Amino acid sequence: VGPEALSLWKNKSTFTSFGVFFLQMGWGDLGAFGEPSKETPNLDQMASEGMLFLDFYTANPLCSPSRAALLTGRLPVRNGFYTTNAHARNAYTPQDIVGGIPDSELLLPELLKKAGYINKIIGKWHLGHRPQFHPLKHGFDEWFGSPNCHFGPFDNRALPNIPVYRDWEMIGRYYEDFKIDLKTGEANLTQIYLQEALDFISKQQASQQPFFLYWAIDATHAPVYASKHFLGTSQRGLYGDAVREIDDSIGKILKHLQKLGISENTFVFFTSDNGAALISAPKEGGSNGRFLCGKQTTFEGGMREPAIAWWPGHIPAGGVSHQLGNVMDLFTTSLSLAGLQPPSDRQIDGIDLLPAILQGKLIDRPIFYYRGNEMMAVRVGLYKAHYWTWSNSWEEYSKGIDFCPGQNVSGVTTHTQEEHTTLPLLFHLGRDPGEKYPLSFASDEYQRAMERISVVVQQHKVTMVPGEPQLNVCDKAVMNWSPPGCEKLGKCLKPPKSDPKKCFWPH
Amino acid sequence: VGPEALSLWKNKSTFTSFGVFFLQMGWGDLGAFGEPSKETPNLDQMASEGMLFLDFYTANPLCSPSRAALLTGRLPVRNGFYTTNAHARNAYTPQDIVGGIPDSELLLPELLKKAGYINKIIGKWHLGHRPQFHPLKHGFDEWFGSPNCHFGPFDNRALPNIPVYRDWEMIGRYYEDFKIDLKTGEANLTQIYLQEALDFISKQQASQQPFFLYWAIDATHAPVYASKHFLGTSQRGLYGDAVREIDDSIGKILKHLQKLGISENTFVFFTSDNGAALISAPKEGGSNGRFLCGKQTTFEGGMREPAIAWWPGHIPAGGVSHQLGNVMDLFTTSLSLAGLQPPSDRQIDGIDLLPAILQGKLIDRPIFYYRGNEMMAVRVGLYKAHYWTWSNSWEEYSKGIDFCPGQNVSGVTTHTQEEHTTLPLLFHLGRDPGEKYPLSFASDEYQRAMERISVVVQQHKVTMVPGEPQLNVCDKAVMNWSPPGCEKLGKCLKPPKSDPKKCFWPH
Repeated sequence: VGPEALSLWKNKSTFTSFGVFFLQMGWGDLGAFGEPSKETPNLDQMASEGMLFLDFYTANPLCSPSRAALLTGRLPVRNGFYTTNAHARNAYTPQDIVGGIPDSELLLPELLKKAGYINKIIGKWHLGHRPQFHPLKHGFDEWFGSPNCHFGPFDNRALPNIPVYRDWEMIGRYYEDFKIDLKTGEANLTQIYLQEALDFISKQQASQQPFFLYWAIDATHAPVYASKHFLGTSQRGLYGDAVREIDDSIGKILKHLQKLGISENTFVFFTSDNGAALISAPKEGGSNGRFLCGKQTTFEGGMREPAIAWWPGHIPAGGVSHQLGNVMDLFTTSLSLAGLQPPSDRQIDGIDLLPAILQGKLIDRPIFYYRGNEMMAVRVGLYKAHYWTWSNSWEEYSKGIDFCPGQNVSGVTTHTQEEHTTLPLLFHLGRDPGEKYPLSFASDEYQRAMERISVVVQQHKVTMVPGEPQLNVCDKAVMNWSPPGCEKLGKCLKPPKSDPKKCFWPH
Repeated sequence: VGPEALSLWKNKSTFTSFGVFFLQMGWGDLGAFGEPSKETPNLDQMASEGMLFLDFYTANPLCSPSRAALLTGRLPVRNGFYTTNAHARNAYTPQDIVGGIPDSELLLPELLKKAGYINKIIGKWHLGHRPQFHPLKHGFDEWFGSPNCHFGPFDNRALPNIPVYRDWEMIGRYYEDFKIDLKTGEANLTQIYLQEALDFISKQQASQQPFFLYWAIDATHAPVYASKHFLGTSQRGLYGDAVREIDDSIGKILKHLQKLGISENTFVFFTSDNGAALISAPKEGGSNGRFLCGKQTTFEGGMREPAIAWWPGHIPAGGVSHQLGNVMDLFTTSLSLAGLQPPSDRQIDGIDLLPAILQGKLIDRPIFYYRGNEMMAVRVGLYKAHYWTWSNSWEEYSKGIDFCPGQNVSGVTTHTQEEHTTLPLLFHLGRDPGEKYPLSFASDEYQRAMERISVVVQQHKVTMVPGEPQLNVCDKAVMNWSPPGCEKLGKCLKPPKSDPKKCFWPH
C-alpha cells in the first residue's frame, strides 16, 4: 500500500477490523453478476456501495484447499493442502483425513493476534479436525461451527455425525442436535451463524477491539438448507432460498456495522471458495453465469468467483475493478491494513490489493489454476493457457458425475487427462469468457501471448517448492468419534482400530 | 393503464414522446446483465435510472419478423412475417424477397400519426424493400437507413449493394458510398445514426411536437463495425467495440433528452430483436449469458432479451420487473401512453405494460416462441414447455453452422425436428434458466404445470388465424437494382428477368 492509502485510513481510525464472507457461491448467483431472478438485493447494494471485482479467483476449485490458501496467503501446493496420491486430483478434508493445516504454516489470525486483534471463525473450518489442527490453535480466539462439511453422515449412527463446536469443545452434532431436514431443506443454522456474527461484532465494538471475523457458512453446499422463513421464497428453488437467506444475513451484518458506527473502520470482503457445484443442479446447484463448467474444474466456472470489497468512506461507491485478484490476496491485504508485514521466510502468493482498491491501480500478476499437484492453467492479462485439461474420468462420467452439465467444448472439456504442456490451449477471456474458442496455434497472437506466458510459468515452476502433502492419508480411526467436550454431552463414540490408507481421490 | 397512471403522466405534460432502441444484442451483453467486462456504463445507468425487465422476449428468434411484430403488436404468424415453404423455418427479408409488410397491417407510426406524432426510423427497416413496403408508406415521416441488412453483397458489383435511404430516396449504397472496412471493422455509421437521432429530437423539441423515434441500428450484426474512435477499446474485441459505441450513443441520446428538458415527456425503451448470434462468435457474436443457444433458436438464448424502460419522473429509479414482456407490448403500451386504443378489428398480441411499469403489477400472460409457422414452445409463469425442439439440421451442423456452440443438452438441442406435442419438454426457468433439466413427466409438478399450460395453448391455437405468409417467394428481379433516387446518383442497375421461386430457408 502506498503512503497515501495508509494515511487515508490511519487518519480515520487507529484500527481497521476485517470481515470476510467466504461462501460457496457461483459467479452467476448474484443479481449484480446477472442472475436472472435478481434476488440478492443486499449483496447488490454492497456492490453498489463498494467495489465489484470482475476478475477475482479462488486458489483451488475445491473448498479445503481454498480455505487454507485464504488463511495462509499461499497456494495449496505450498501449504500442503493437496495430494500426491494420483496426478491432478482434487482433495479435501473429509472425516477420515489424517492431515490438516501444518503447524509450520502462519495463518492470518495468528499474525493479526500479535497486533491485538480478536479473531473469530463462524462456520466451516475445513483445515483438519484432529486436535492439533483446531482453529484456536491457529490464531482464532473464538469458533462457532463445524470442522467438516455437513454433507454426511446423515445421522446413520454407524459413523460419527459431524460435531459442532463452540470454541474448544463440541456442543452437539449435525442431525442429532443441529437439525437439517433433508426432505424439506429446513435448518435454522444460517440464523444461528448470523446471530453469532452480530453478537461478536457488538462485543468487539463495545470493547473498542479490532477484530477479524471470518464468516464461512455453508448453506449453499449440498445438502442445501434455509430456515423456515426463507423456504419457498425464491424463484430458484431451495438453492435460491439459501442464497436469499445469506444475502439477507449479510445485509444485516453490514447494517449492524453501520449502526454501531464502525463501518468506516471495517474492511469487508465477500467471495467464494469455489465455483458453483453444477453437479448438484438444478435443485442444489448454483450458477457460474456464462463461464465453463463448475466446482472441481480449472475452467473459469470452477475458479472465477463473485467478489465485493466494502469499506464505506474509503472505497468509492460503485467501483468496478478488473484487477486479477485471488483469495490469497485477502491475507496480504489484511496484513497491510493492519500495518503488518507478511512473513518473509516463505513464499507468499497473495498480493496487497489496496492500490487496486483505493487508487484504482492495476497490478500485473498471474493467476494459477491448480488441481492437486498440477498447475493446470495460468492466466496472464486476458489470456488463459491450459497446460492440462480434464473434467473427470470416463468412468465417473458414465456414472452421471458431470462437472460441466449441458456443456461440451470439443478438446477442452475432456474425460481423459489431456496434456498440452508443449502447446497449451490458449483462450482470450475478453472475447471468449466461456473458453469455447482456443486461439489458432499458428496465429501471431498465440505466439506473442505464449512468449509472455511462458516466462511467467517458467519463473513459477523454477521457484516452486511444494509443501508436504497433507491430504494423502485417510484412516477411519481419526473420524470425529470423541471430540473434546463429548464426555459432558455423553456423545463420545468408540473409534475403530487405526488402519491408515491412501485416500482415494477420483477427480 | 389504470386511471392513476394516466393522470400521472397527463399531469406532467400534454404529450409523451417515444424512443425505442431496437438492436441485435444478447441478454448477456450488458454489464447490468452480468457481462464480465462490464463495458456498458450508459445502459447500466439507464437501467439504474429506470426499470430493468428480466423476463422480456422478442416475438421471433430472427430480425425481420421481430421488427414486424414490434411495429404491428402482432405475432409474425399473424402479420405475415413467416414462411410456409417448410416446417418451422426462420425467414426474413433478404434482397430477393418478394413480400413485405402487408398494407392491411396497421403499424404503430400509422396510428401515432393520427394523434399528431412525427415518426422517424433510423437504421434497418427490414419489412420489405419494394416500393409498396417503404416505411414512409407505413406511417413513418422520416427515414435514414437501409431496407435490408448490411451483410452483403460486399461491393461485388454483380448484385446490387444495399441502398441507404434518406426518406423517399436512396442517397448511396453500402460499401460504395457508406464504407464498412471488412478487414478492420471500421465504419462511422453509428455516429451518423447518432447524429440523425440528436437532430431529430432537437427539431421536434423546438416545434413542441410529440414524436416516435425508432432507432434500429445494426452495428452488432455481422459484419460488426465500429467507428475509429471505438476500435480496439473493448476487452471483448470488435463486437465489444460496437457495443461500446452503441452504449455511448444511447448515453448521448438520453443526455440530449435531459438537456432539452423533455426527458420526463419521453418514454424510452431499449431492447433487442433476437438473441446474440452465437454463430458469429467469438469475433462478431455477443452473449446470451447463461441462457441456452442463441439467435435462430426458440431456446431462451434465442428470444429472451435485455430490456430497459426509462422515463425519469414516472418510472421509479432502479426498478426491476419480472413481468413477462414482449416487443409487441411496445405497440400497445405506446398507444396507451398516447391515449389511443389499439385496433379492435384484429387480434393484438401485445399488452399494455404500464401497470407493470408504473404500478409494479404482474400481469399473467403467456409468451409464445414461434419458428416460422410453428409454435415451438410456450412460457406460462416460470414454466416453459417445448412442443418442438430443433437447433438446426445435421446437414447444416456438419458444415459448421452451430447455433449452440459448446452447448449440448441431450434430447433438447436436437439436430432433427423433434415433436413433443403429446408430452412437451417442460422446464422451470427459475431453477433452471439454462433449460438443461427437463422435469420428470411422472412428477406431480409436471402434471400440474401442463394442465395450466395446455389450456393456454389450446385457447391460442383455437383462435389463431394465420396471416398470408409474406416470406415464401424470392426473385432476383426484385433486388435493389434501381431504388427511387438512383437516377440522380447514376446508380441504377438493370434488373434481370423476373423468375420467382420458393425461397430456401434452411433453418
